[in-house]
Amino acid sequence: MKPVKVGICGLGTVGGGTFNVLTENNHDIARRAGREIIIEQVGTRRPNPACDTSNTQVTDDIFAVAENPEIDILVELIGGYDVARELVLKAIENGKHVVTANKALIAVHGAEIFAAAKKAGVTVGYEAGVAGGIPVIKAIREGLAANHIERVAGIINGTGNFILTEMRDKGRDFDDVLQEAQALGYAEADPTFDVEGIDAAHKLTILSSIAYGIPLQFENCFTEGISKITRDDVQYAEELGYRIKHLGISARTSTGIDLRVHPTLVPLDNMIAKVDGVMNAVAVKGNAVNDTLFCGPGAGAGPTASAVVADIIDIAREISIEPLAFNSLEDVRVLPIEEVETGYYLRMQALDKAGVMARVASILSNNGINIEAIIQKEPAEGEILVPIIMLTHKVQEKVMNQAIAEIEDYGDINGSVTKIRVEHLN
Amino acid sequence: MKPVKVGICGLGTVGGGTFNVLTENNHDIARRAGREIIIEQVGTRRPNPACDTSNTQVTDDIFAVAENPEIDILVELIGGYDVARELVLKAIENGKHVVTANKALIAVHGAEIFAAAKKAGVTVGYEAGVAGGIPVIKAIREGLAANHIERVAGIINGTGNFILTEMRDKGRDFDDVLQEAQALGYAEADPTFDVEGIDAAHKLTILSSIAYGIPLQFENCFTEGISKITRDDVQYAEELGYRIKHLGISARTSTGIDLRVHPTLVPLDNMIAKVDGVMNAVAVKGNAVNDTLFCGPGAGAGPTASAVVADIIDIAREISIEPLAFNSLEDVRVLPIEEVETGYYLRMQALDKAGVMARVASILSNNGINIEAIIQKEPAEGEILVPIIMLTHKVQEKVMNQAIAEIEDYGDINGSVTKIRVEHLN
Repeated sequence: MKPVKVGICGLGTVGGGTFNVLTENNHDIARRAGREIIIEQVGTRRPNPACDTSNTQVTDDIFAVAENPEIDILVELIGGYDVARELVLKAIENGKHVVTANKALIAVHGAEIFAAAKKAGVTVGYEAGVAGGIPVIKAIREGLAANHIERVAGIINGTGNFILTEMRDKGRDFDDVLQEAQALGYAEADPTFDVEGIDAAHKLTILSSIAYGIPLQFENCFTEGISKITRDDVQYAEELGYRIKHLGISARTSTGIDLRVHPTLVPLDNMIAKVDGVMNAVAVKGNAVNDTLFCGPGAGAGPTASAVVADIIDIAREISIEPLAFNSLEDVRVLPIEEVETGYYLRMQALDKAGVMARVASILSNNGINIEAIIQKEPAEGEILVPIIMLTHKVQEKVMNQAIAEIEDYGDINGSVTKIRVEHLN
Repeated sequence: MKPVKVGICGLGTVGGGTFNVLTENNHDIARRAGREIIIEQVGTRRPNPACDTSNTQVTDDIFAVAENPEIDILVELIGGYDVARELVLKAIENGKHVVTANKALIAVHGAEIFAAAKKAGVTVGYEAGVAGGIPVIKAIREGLAANHIERVAGIINGTGNFILTEMRDKGRDFDDVLQEAQALGYAEADPTFDVEGIDAAHKLTILSSIAYGIPLQFENCFTEGISKITRDDVQYAEELGYRIKHLGISARTSTGIDLRVHPTLVPLDNMIAKVDGVMNAVAVKGNAVNDTLFCGPGAGAGPTASAVVADIIDIAREISIEPLAFNSLEDVRVLPIEEVETGYYLRMQALDKAGVMARVASILSNNGINIEAIIQKEPAEGEILVPIIMLTHKVQEKVMNQAIAEIEDYGDINGSVTKIRVEHLN
């Protein structure tokens, strides 16, 4: 078979990694793909010192790659929304397959891009956009295709997991660990996308679409970050037998699709609770297979390139399926967060006097909320406030919000109640 | 597109599960496959009370399914070697695709079957043969196709993992737990295939072939079971910071392919050490992605059917790649176990007197073997023998065997030395 010619746009961390994986592993890759895969052209403004491009055509105009008639597959690794969208649509219009690692692009502009690709008869690969090196898109779309998928729950942002792991292991504060993560290059200078859950929401949007056959709808994903988690919360959770993870969770319920990213208490003996540091993990529950878990590095040059190149090899092997796994999407309603049911961890500061706990318990009880566990600490030296920590059974969020409002109105409770959702994932 | 017609041969646990998954999930499956998948015929001697076959053609002659001109895909779920081989070859000869869950068949007769399929231009799917519901064949063959695979290490026999988990959690003996596993249906009446590692060796043979592009060679896989592991070994391993798992391990080394199944001490903080009970897990290390781990149920009607039906959907989607992932296999030498390098856990019974430990240490040292840790226990009440436990650094097995022979010759050591291999998997 004739070689497949690739044009790489963007030669940063992932672009450079892709260049090097295609070059260094070309023997194995050609044996697997059944044909040579050649880097025909690279579009980049800046050279990458990790890449030897001396035998490669390099242009500083990425759109020249989209116009190059020699190129079969355009690899979009420039990131961002607008230029990336324009570049990808231009490549598709010119009959090229596209491979991208850009989850923001797919989560927000995926519908438009896939429609254009369908019209042009080309493939769009985006495995690298979710969970880096873990082939979880392929696992859900193909490996678990026999299943009615019931739930997807994932640690899909390595920065957030690194921060929570450090807070737990070393009893450190959020801000302190975030600064270290930035120094180590795990977190961006503006960490909003990572710590506020936007990046995870992009990825969860994509996973949910391929799991349930629903349209991409980033705008309907409830998103809450980890910046308000304290080391006390992390510690109390452990005392209760749980670990706080920043999870993307989506589930099929009788009333709609549950779609949310937030800090979550998970039982310590659940495998996903054991995934530490910058590792990612995605747990998929299907009605035939039951629980599966896919773990691996969620970012970095090598792992992300591994996924980019896997998509290129799929195209070279002429594997082409619907980008969102289903040949028709069903527009199932996404639940507003107020309708979602979970357990809750509540932490509040109470005056250290008799009857406070009983009053709080009765507010919960009057709202039909069952308490699963309580921790009441001694007041710290010289303090008149004591922390009260409670775990509740499952209840609708709007019911919990009402109860919390009542607790916050009660004079013997100081300040606001911290609420973290609990999932048993069983 | 016109429907795909399937014939299922064998309606036992997995056959029944496949029948039910295809029936119950047919809406999602058709949306994913882009066409209907119809069970055209079932070949079985016995009905399965879990399956409603009232609207399905049933024959007691499985070869009639292979001859049925309506059928596109024959699903072989009868198990065993000879009849299964004949059935599969007949189906291929008649131009049918084949899907099987039979690892023994693929590990032993795979080369012949794949050659016949290539000649006939049909596909053979066998995802269900390895690690049940975990789509690990697809992960290695496609999802990690960009990588030069360096190592595969897996818990690929749920029965063995259940036994080791129970021995650890409850301090029980091997024989005791095996009996329970048989009562629970996790282990066969003749448990040899499971506990002696033959089943795991079949699966590892398959995984290694698709990981490295080498021929299937079950006969070259070193196999050691778990029947000699004592609860003391399990306990001492924990004290040393390790857990005993029955692993299939294969690796690419500079002198050949390492291919072996045996009980293995794994560090407690390695994710694979945390996989308990009947769960399976496969860790794959690639030069681009680094470490990935795939976990899930390794057996049972639903999980195995999930994998069988995924293969059927791949065929319906017209996804067809080389069954062993590479279009040409390389006949790399497999290392004899004597040439393999690992760390070792040694346990021996010594006379409780001065100088014994020093003598053992000097035998190891004279053979160039470094000791990493030692536990010496007090003798039990009324005993004159004390257990000595040692962990060594990595050394070639033939060197270790020589040192063990010298230790066993030493008069103050009673009986034989227990040797369990140690892998850090880093």
